Amino acid sequence: MHETSPPVVAPSILAANFLHLENDIRQAVDGGAPWIHCDIMDGHFVPNISFGPDVVETVRSATDVFLDVHLMIEDPDRYIADFARAGADLITVHVETCPHLHRTLQSIHELGCHAGVAINPGTALGTLRAALEDADLVLLMTVNPGFGGQKFIRFSYDRLRALRLMRQELNKSFLIEVDGGVSRSNASDITSAGADVLVAGSSVFKSSDIASEVDAIRNAAGASYRSDYV
Amino acid sequence: MHETSPPVVAPSILAANFLHLENDIRQAVDGGAPWIHCDIMDGHFVPNISFGPDVVETVRSATDVFLDVHLMIEDPDRYIADFARAGADLITVHVETCPHLHRTLQSIHELGCHAGVAINPGTALGTLRAALEDADLVLLMTVNPGFGGQKFIRFSYDRLRALRLMRQELNKSFLIEVDGGVSRSNASDITSAGADVLVAGSSVFKSSDIASEVDAIRNAAGASYRSDYV
Amino acid sequence: MHETSPPVVAPSILAANFLHLENDIRQAVDGGAPWIHCDIMDGHFVPNISFGPDVVETVRSATDVFLDVHLMIEDPDRYIADFARAGADLITVHVETCPHLHRTLQSIHELGCHAGVAINPGTALGTLRAALEDADLVLLMTVNPGFGGQKFIRFSYDRLRALRLMRQELNKSFLIEVDGGVSRSNASDITSAGADVLVAGSSVFKSSDIASEVDAIRNAAGASYRSDYV
Amino acid sequence: MHETSPPVVAPSILAANFLHLENDIRQAVDGGAPWIHCDIMDGHFVPNISFGPDVVETVRSATDVFLDVHLMIEDPDRYIADFARAGADLITVHVETCPHLHRTLQSIHELGCHAGVAINPGTALGTLRAALEDADLVLLMTVNPGFGGQKFIRFSYDRLRALRLMRQELNKSFLIEVDGGVSRSNASDITSAGADVLVAGSSVFKSSDIASEVDAIRNAAGASYRSDYV
Amino acid sequence: MHETSPPVVAPSILAANFLHLENDIRQAVDGGAPWIHCDIMDGHFVPNISFGPDVVETVRSATDVFLDVHLMIEDPDRYIADFARAGADLITVHVETCPHLHRTLQSIHELGCHAGVAINPGTALGTLRAALEDADLVLLMTVNPGFGGQKFIRFSYDRLRALRLMRQELNKSFLIEVDGGVSRSNASDITSAGADVLVAGSSVFKSSDIASEVDAIRNAAGASYRSDYV
Amino acid sequence: MHETSPPVVAPSILAANFLHLENDIRQAVDGGAPWIHCDIMDGHFVPNISFGPDVVETVRSATDVFLDVHLMIEDPDRYIADFARAGADLITVHVETCPHLHRTLQSIHELGCHAGVAINPGTALGTLRAALEDADLVLLMTVNPGFGGQKFIRFSYDRLRALRLMRQELNKSFLIEVDGGVSRSNASDITSAGADVLVAGSSVFKSSDIASEVDAIRNAAGASYRSDYV
Repeated sequence: MHETSPPVVAPSILAANFLHLENDIRQAVDGGAPWIHCDIMDGHFVPNISFGPDVVETVRSATDVFLDVHLMIEDPDRYIADFARAGADLITVHVETCPHLHRTLQSIHELGCHAGVAINPGTALGTLRAALEDADLVLLMTVNPGFGGQKFIRFSYDRLRALRLMRQELNKSFLIEVDGGVSRSNASDITSAGADVLVAGSSVFKSSDIASEVDAIRNAAGASYRSDYV
Repeated sequence: MHETSPPVVAPSILAANFLHLENDIRQAVDGGAPWIHCDIMDGHFVPNISFGPDVVETVRSATDVFLDVHLMIEDPDRYIADFARAGADLITVHVETCPHLHRTLQSIHELGCHAGVAINPGTALGTLRAALEDADLVLLMTVNPGFGGQKFIRFSYDRLRALRLMRQELNKSFLIEVDGGVSRSNASDITSAGADVLVAGSSVFKSSDIASEVDAIRNAAGASYRSDYV
Repeated sequence: MHETSPPVVAPSILAANFLHLENDIRQAVDGGAPWIHCDIMDGHFVPNISFGPDVVETVRSATDVFLDVHLMIEDPDRYIADFARAGADLITVHVETCPHLHRTLQSIHELGCHAGVAINPGTALGTLRAALEDADLVLLMTVNPGFGGQKFIRFSYDRLRALRLMRQELNKSFLIEVDGGVSRSNASDITSAGADVLVAGSSVFKSSDIASEVDAIRNAAGASYRSDYV
Repeated sequence: MHETSPPVVAPSILAANFLHLENDIRQAVDGGAPWIHCDIMDGHFVPNISFGPDVVETVRSATDVFLDVHLMIEDPDRYIADFARAGADLITVHVETCPHLHRTLQSIHELGCHAGVAINPGTALGTLRAALEDADLVLLMTVNPGFGGQKFIRFSYDRLRALRLMRQELNKSFLIEVDGGVSRSNASDITSAGADVLVAGSSVFKSSDIASEVDAIRNAAGASYRSDYV
Repeated sequence: MHETSPPVVAPSILAANFLHLENDIRQAVDGGAPWIHCDIMDGHFVPNISFGPDVVETVRSATDVFLDVHLMIEDPDRYIADFARAGADLITVHVETCPHLHRTLQSIHELGCHAGVAINPGTALGTLRAALEDADLVLLMTVNPGFGGQKFIRFSYDRLRALRLMRQELNKSFLIEVDGGVSRSNASDITSAGADVLVAGSSVFKSSDIASEVDAIRNAAGASYRSDYV
Repeated sequence: MHETSPPVVAPSILAANFLHLENDIRQAVDGGAPWIHCDIMDGHFVPNISFGPDVVETVRSATDVFLDVHLMIEDPDRYIADFARAGADLITVHVETCPHLHRTLQSIHELGCHAGVAINPGTALGTLRAALEDADLVLLMTVNPGFGGQKFIRFSYDRLRALRLMRQELNKSFLIEVDGGVSRSNASDITSAGADVLVAGSSVFKSSDIASEVDAIRNAAGASYRSDYV
């Protein structure tokens, strides 16, 4: 997962134009995005339906970048194999949807993928404790999942710092990813608080120049990045 | 709904290439498709996740044709307003998912859309009886919903004939739509048995010439069409 | 159930004023209502929460009339004993919520209550077939359950006639109850089409004179009533 | 499925003694039982938990008779492959639990098993119509599923006759199985009304002589059996 | 929320007499109750059905006091707008029912209401951590929700002290409310352990003198109250 | 619960041979097993269906040992009374399935049984905090529940030590039970880390000599056992 050194910008295609997705992805990759983020929503765990394994497989056919698949769906175990088969490199599930979280992360690993665990803004970080033993990445939601275009929740800075501290004290090496309200204006603060991977949706794909926006966020993020997780 | 005289070919974009959707839609429309069919799957009612309101809105922005949205989702009432807002002309729900089917069809009408009711291959036609009072269209599934590329279930011909008979005896004017396993080779048999609208997915979008495939299905369908529903 | 000869007017206290319920009930009973109808809504089967066993027990403490409890709730088996204990004379469940409908009606009988089965406007009457062997009453919804103040669905007249015919052909003696949009202006048409019991909510309790409204509906209903169910 | 000519007695091991199951099964088979019936209950669809694939596999290891597995569980598609792997010859699912009934029966066939459809006492027979095209057997519940030792519901005789008539008119060859309250005293009436297979639980396994009880039921059933389904 | 200085007594109308609710409310308010507490139960999250938005609206029409609405219902997001419209001043949801707790509290605020979070006796206080950033009130259940008349769980004193400590350390100003088993005999201990608001149901409305009971609880509570939360 | 002094070996009959269960149980008891562990799986909370109250009752009829019933089922409150009636001495529920955990433990106690709480490998220990006030036993899953024959998860040693520490600091006396991957080779490490009760399934019942395997595990466990919980 670390071939590209962090901080990583992961453009979320949820915000791309689905009339010409290939074109939008190409521009993001040209701008230096080493990851593409796929937001999978089922209309049950979150109040929106986005797309599923077929679109991920289509994205895979168009690019070689690292595919970061975020499952905002109920009972994700039913779909893990489908997303692995579709070409996901990383599959992230929510702590809120997984009563058997260890088993779920284990299944992802057995399918040859990296395994992440995501947490909603209102869920206590302490609920992640056991999962930190097995996760390759923790995805800290900085907006409530379901829609693009929301504002970054300010309390997230404290949570980023707390999560970085937990990682240090437990002597773990999972990456910390942030999703929601990321733009070139707050990227530096976000990495400075502890993020290694920054998902960016609207700020990238709704901009007039996708490639340069990716580049701008990466530069801002890089400026303050402290590589303490190694 | 009847501006274009039936039989209507409704290409299902589930089978299109999502890297360049606009291009695929354009070809289907150029081939004479007056409707575009959108298969919405939530991974709960059917074992696949497809796409949601955002993609429908994107399709709407690209074309003026009649947008036929088929909700293969649990508890569809939660999403009807989203799909109406996204530009659907027709919204179809499953009898298997609607304990308050009259209310659901009524809500669709109140949002200014046509309202359809779909039925799975294993569900008795008799369960549709009350809904036939209010539906503008009945969608007879001729494969089990969830995936493209399945084979047309032969017993469906009997069901088409039975449904046409019910329409006649009740003196109703709903359209009969067929979804699953439709191709140029069986289109004539299907319209001859009673269908007014033919959804075609893989046969259209996986072919080498989308436009001419639409045209071929329409010609086959038209040859045997008996306009008795008027 | 037949001590009072039909047609019966059953005022629904959903529409009463809960600041002084006893007063409203008293007026309805004074107006000649032999039944009081209680609409139980759980916010899951229908989009409203109304009241539960405690209110039914309270109503029971205030009056001796026949208590007609209509469960618009999911998985009603869990609450049948509570409503029997609260003093219900008749407990009615929805065919849409009972995969084990025979068992549910049997349980109600074992608790010493009459057992009814309700059906939504969009559900085919044929699904009631087996339940007609055991039900003491069929409640035909003539609006979609969940709210007071809706308009009577006209197709219900056909359904009433069809249900009366089924009763005759099967040689059964269940009562036919109608719920939704009943007022003094359509009561005569409703009994003429087959109803024995008329639930009336807003028309009774939102009127300026509750007692005389009950009386007016009963007179209208009685004018056309054909006592064929005996 | 027809190697043994009907009527078939299928002892249900739900009523056997689980301290020495092999012994009980042996006696039933020695008494001439060509089928063994396995009642699978999940505590969700029915109010009891019985046993699962492991016990079926264990039974399979002890006997060569035809294994008839009846799934009284929600969302049975998740377990069909497990029961096929465990050695089931016939897998029966409930019409009340299968919104995609055609797909479910198809899956059972693809796993190399016979496919049955079961129906509760309170469900209208008409809901089976489409499934009769694909089912090898219809299991008519004559008590409400969940517990042994209940009394045969008398209305079931009418349903048996109606089902036999449907089979004849549709020119199908599915077997008709009856489950609930079967004993040597009513076996003759049951086959006379249309049953080909009789599940017997308590009457067999709670008797003092298992083998002779199986024999007695078979004799009673055979006396009135009319082999019209061929 | 603080116009009335704590400690606040909030009589719960669940225990009032629904035959003459206005009268009971009037007495409680006359006794000095600045808040009225409404227990909303859906029969799914808790094993009781109480009442819904219509009754809250009715209560609102009868009094100007602060309306404190406690949602003991599954998936409360569906009903928040209804209760805001009905006149709630404070809407409290359970941490056990809200996988998107931050979003839920945010929605309540956007509707112009105060937002509370409730926690069951068996749920670890640590799960509240993130919600304490946004909540205006924490409702500590001191009996298991579902019924009136239960005994105060003694371990709750420890939890009250722990919660007060968390508030202090995090430098927050949410109110602490206690619900279950509150009476004049333990009110002093409860405020002394940290409560600002005391819900009282049976002890108030089942007493012979509602007004003086409210007064007695308030006096007891006030004696030991330490206003440290400001 | 402490008549037999710990460490206790509790053979899980899930791994026994169901053709002659009595025989297997007898051997385990002869080997010195003071407890028998019953794994109840409903195919919903875990991906397997095992057995229910009837089998527990059968086991109870065959032996006087302590019956330890572990409910791996959704909404366990519905079945607690059934298992108590069947003869369970201890009933253990999962923290992941009980939003009203205090009430559930209380119900078990009211039925005259000991009450345990189980926790999955991926769930944070902190979520148990409030339940530790009432539980007689904590069952730490050391594999993911659902199947026998899995490997002990190594991180469990840390969790055992942490749980023992919590017990000490809170001054409680609950027993600590371990379930999953226990054998004679790791029993000593497990008790040394804090376990009082060791569930053993495959290692016992799949061995050639059940009695001596129980004995071997007990000896290994006893060697390192530190009776600090008294």
